[in-house]
Amino acid sequence: MHFELTKEYVEMLQQLIEQKAEKEIRSLFVDLHPADIAEIMDVLSLEEAKYIYLLLGGEKASDVLLEIPEADRRRFLRALPPEVIARQFIEYMDSDDAADIVQDLDDDLQQEVLNEIEDVEQAGDIADLLDYDEESAGGIMAKELVSVNENWTVAKCLREISQQAEDVDEIYYVYVIDDVGILKGILSLKKLILTHTNAKISNIYNSDIKSVPTDTPQEEVAHIIDKYDLVALPVVDHQGRLKGRITVDDVIDIIREEAEKDYQMVSGITGDVEMTDRVWPLTRARIPWLMVGLFGGIMGAQVLGIYETALTKFQGLALFIPLIAAMAGNVGVQSSSIVVQTIAAGGKDIQSTMNKLLKESSVALITALVFSTLIFFYNFITKDNMQLTFTVSVSLFIVILFASLFGTFVPLLLNRLKIDPALATGPFITTTNDILGLIVYMLVGSFFFNLTVF
Amino acid sequence: MHFELTKEYVEMLQQLIEQKAEKEIRSLFVDLHPADIAEIMDVLSLEEAKYIYLLLGGEKASDVLLEIPEADRRRFLRALPPEVIARQFIEYMDSDDAADIVQDLDDDLQQEVLNEIEDVEQAGDIADLLDYDEESAGGIMAKELVSVNENWTVAKCLREISQQAEDVDEIYYVYVIDDVGILKGILSLKKLILTHTNAKISNIYNSDIKSVPTDTPQEEVAHIIDKYDLVALPVVDHQGRLKGRITVDDVIDIIREEAEKDYQMVSGITGDVEMTDRVWPLTRARIPWLMVGLFGGIMGAQVLGIYETALTKFQGLALFIPLIAAMAGNVGVQSSSIVVQTIAAGGKDIQSTMNKLLKESSVALITALVFSTLIFFYNFITKDNMQLTFTVSVSLFIVILFASLFGTFVPLLLNRLKIDPALATGPFITTTNDILGLIVYMLVGSFFFNLTVF
Repeated sequence: MHFELTKEYVEMLQQLIEQKAEKEIRSLFVDLHPADIAEIMDVLSLEEAKYIYLLLGGEKASDVLLEIPEADRRRFLRALPPEVIARQFIEYMDSDDAADIVQDLDDDLQQEVLNEIEDVEQAGDIADLLDYDEESAGGIMAKELVSVNENWTVAKCLREISQQAEDVDEIYYVYVIDDVGILKGILSLKKLILTHTNAKISNIYNSDIKSVPTDTPQEEVAHIIDKYDLVALPVVDHQGRLKGRITVDDVIDIIREEAEKDYQMVSGITGDVEMTDRVWPLTRARIPWLMVGLFGGIMGAQVLGIYETALTKFQGLALFIPLIAAMAGNVGVQSSSIVVQTIAAGGKDIQSTMNKLLKESSVALITALVFSTLIFFYNFITKDNMQLTFTVSVSLFIVILFASLFGTFVPLLLNRLKIDPALATGPFITTTNDILGLIVYMLVGSFFFNLTVF
Repeated sequence: MHFELTKEYVEMLQQLIEQKAEKEIRSLFVDLHPADIAEIMDVLSLEEAKYIYLLLGGEKASDVLLEIPEADRRRFLRALPPEVIARQFIEYMDSDDAADIVQDLDDDLQQEVLNEIEDVEQAGDIADLLDYDEESAGGIMAKELVSVNENWTVAKCLREISQQAEDVDEIYYVYVIDDVGILKGILSLKKLILTHTNAKISNIYNSDIKSVPTDTPQEEVAHIIDKYDLVALPVVDHQGRLKGRITVDDVIDIIREEAEKDYQMVSGITGDVEMTDRVWPLTRARIPWLMVGLFGGIMGAQVLGIYETALTKFQGLALFIPLIAAMAGNVGVQSSSIVVQTIAAGGKDIQSTMNKLLKESSVALITALVFSTLIFFYNFITKDNMQLTFTVSVSLFIVILFASLFGTFVPLLLNRLKIDPALATGPFITTTNDILGLIVYMLVGSFFFNLTVF
């Protein structure tokens, strides 16, 4: 039942492509789901993939095109003339998918492709969708939906559905509108089937529904669909007129993308890469963070350089540099990640920033106490060096406290400024915490080692 | 349209609870979605929440209970007698939700609750579901679905649906089975509406469908629903008999949970915490990773202790300790995160482990060359110390190479051993890389500083 991509399969297919064995390839693909074909495309060369696309043609090729990674799609479409893009691909797509594809084209090509679309209504729908912000409800909705007037009967409604339904792949709900197009409610197909055909729609529809205006950010759309377990969410304009619908499969992609973006940020990867990518994209994705890390390391060397005489003079001081730096980094990442995760979960939040920082202070205080006590006893027992014992403990205490508050405050501030708070889980905070940790350590060390009471 | 939880609202509600103003509270909640009420419950005390649950009762209270966090639910249910759990909550739930709730109860309570359920069929369904692994398709499916026999006509089918549909909230597809219950295909309601009532089901259903056996891991279920953009996926036993269905809303939760687990691992947080949690859970979630970090720091101090004379004798050697340790940690996290993300994305993968390690070697080689060259020139220009310049460059080169391969190999190995590869993004790898980085640095340093050619 499930398709399993194997090395043998790919080799066999490549041989067939080389032999231009059209019939065999077509019969190979006839029962495959577009998502499976997309996986095959991923391991073929651009030339081989192009051959397959043009061979499949029409609906199937368009579906496959929608399943492959954006970058590959862009590369492929760039090589095609506008009329081929319009007539062999765009015309087979739903308006939301078509708009995504057109959006991705160069500006001058966009107009040319729109002009080549033969179905005027479809071209108009796509042009409408292009006007919305790509990451808003308007930008991700599809215009294809089934709507019925509240004054109709069930019988008229069923007739109407059979006409409208041709354009719509799956009907989950029928939307009920009034004479001027304002969304009044929804009607499930189940209800339609179970109700007498003479009944009036206005008496049976469900008016207690969720909808969003076109300018709702896509993260909020995803949050609403997830929270209320919806399969589709209607989108309305600011007069409340029905404009489109967003389906749950689009939302899954958004949720995945958001989660991946946050994950990449905290693990120091720039851009969406996978192991199957080539060497250069994989390398490029890793260099920026390491560059910040290298710069941080050089700054750290500068800080230590100022105290170099202390480092060589005061016995043992150098040994705990990695401990202080690592703890500062770890505590900072933990704090900022908790903030980012809380924001991403999208739960309502009635705590003030001051309350959050106060709570974080308590957490930081306990953590700092625990770890500075532990390291105090470790050094007290194993080292005969009270200056060092106090230096490490006191600076670890200060560093944990500071890194916690810094790690909490910065993402909250970024979020307030409408900047992605996940930035704060990345290299900048870690590196800043590392350096500040070293400064604290050196200052505290200089203080204790210059005291004469020991 | 959307409910907005404010501090004022909560205070007003708490006052009403104190006054036991039942009527006002009921009217406050009558139009609220269970998911919104769950958010309110989250900020109320256990006592206040309990009062609301018992006031709401029945369907609504059950729906709210399903929306609150697991830990809160467990705490709440533990305080109730089995007959209340069964009759005021379980009986209003779908079989999959009911099974989740019962699963969570203590072993002896499970049986008691099942015995208290009055609907024998429902009790049987729940008991069936409890037999499946919680994280398999069988464990997350619901038994409620609408199925029709392939030999029926559309008319009989519609009649049958109106009978079966009472138990099922939403019908997305009707499942077509044969006389012995084997799943043959699906039928969309759209098709049913658009087809003549005399038509035979066997002539109109779609046999090209995805289904999974009951023992499919939930991650794979999520992957299939996501990949093929499904709204519901039927679950079959090993004879192919229809057993239940999994809906997309359950899958969104699984995707979110998986992403959160990986995110927590890489950011060093143990367990699912949010900023709104109390001080102690927040602290407890952070201590384990920091403990490993502290231990790593102590090991690092041991390593440096061995070379303490070198550190005090060789000028500048101590300054680059943070740089080496940070780069080792960062490179390791990057490598393992890419592996984890690739596995989580679940794409088919025809590369062998050897191929992956070879490719990672190329990436590591380029990265190592870039950064060791950069630091070479930095030190060459700013420091008049060739031993140090060579030591830092050469050890950075080795450390990047090693940390990359280690960071790639370990998660691949864990995955092969069926252990969650995300473990490798956590503290163990980072700490190990830190320590190994220091050892390399000290060995290379001893070598160059003892050379006499400079």
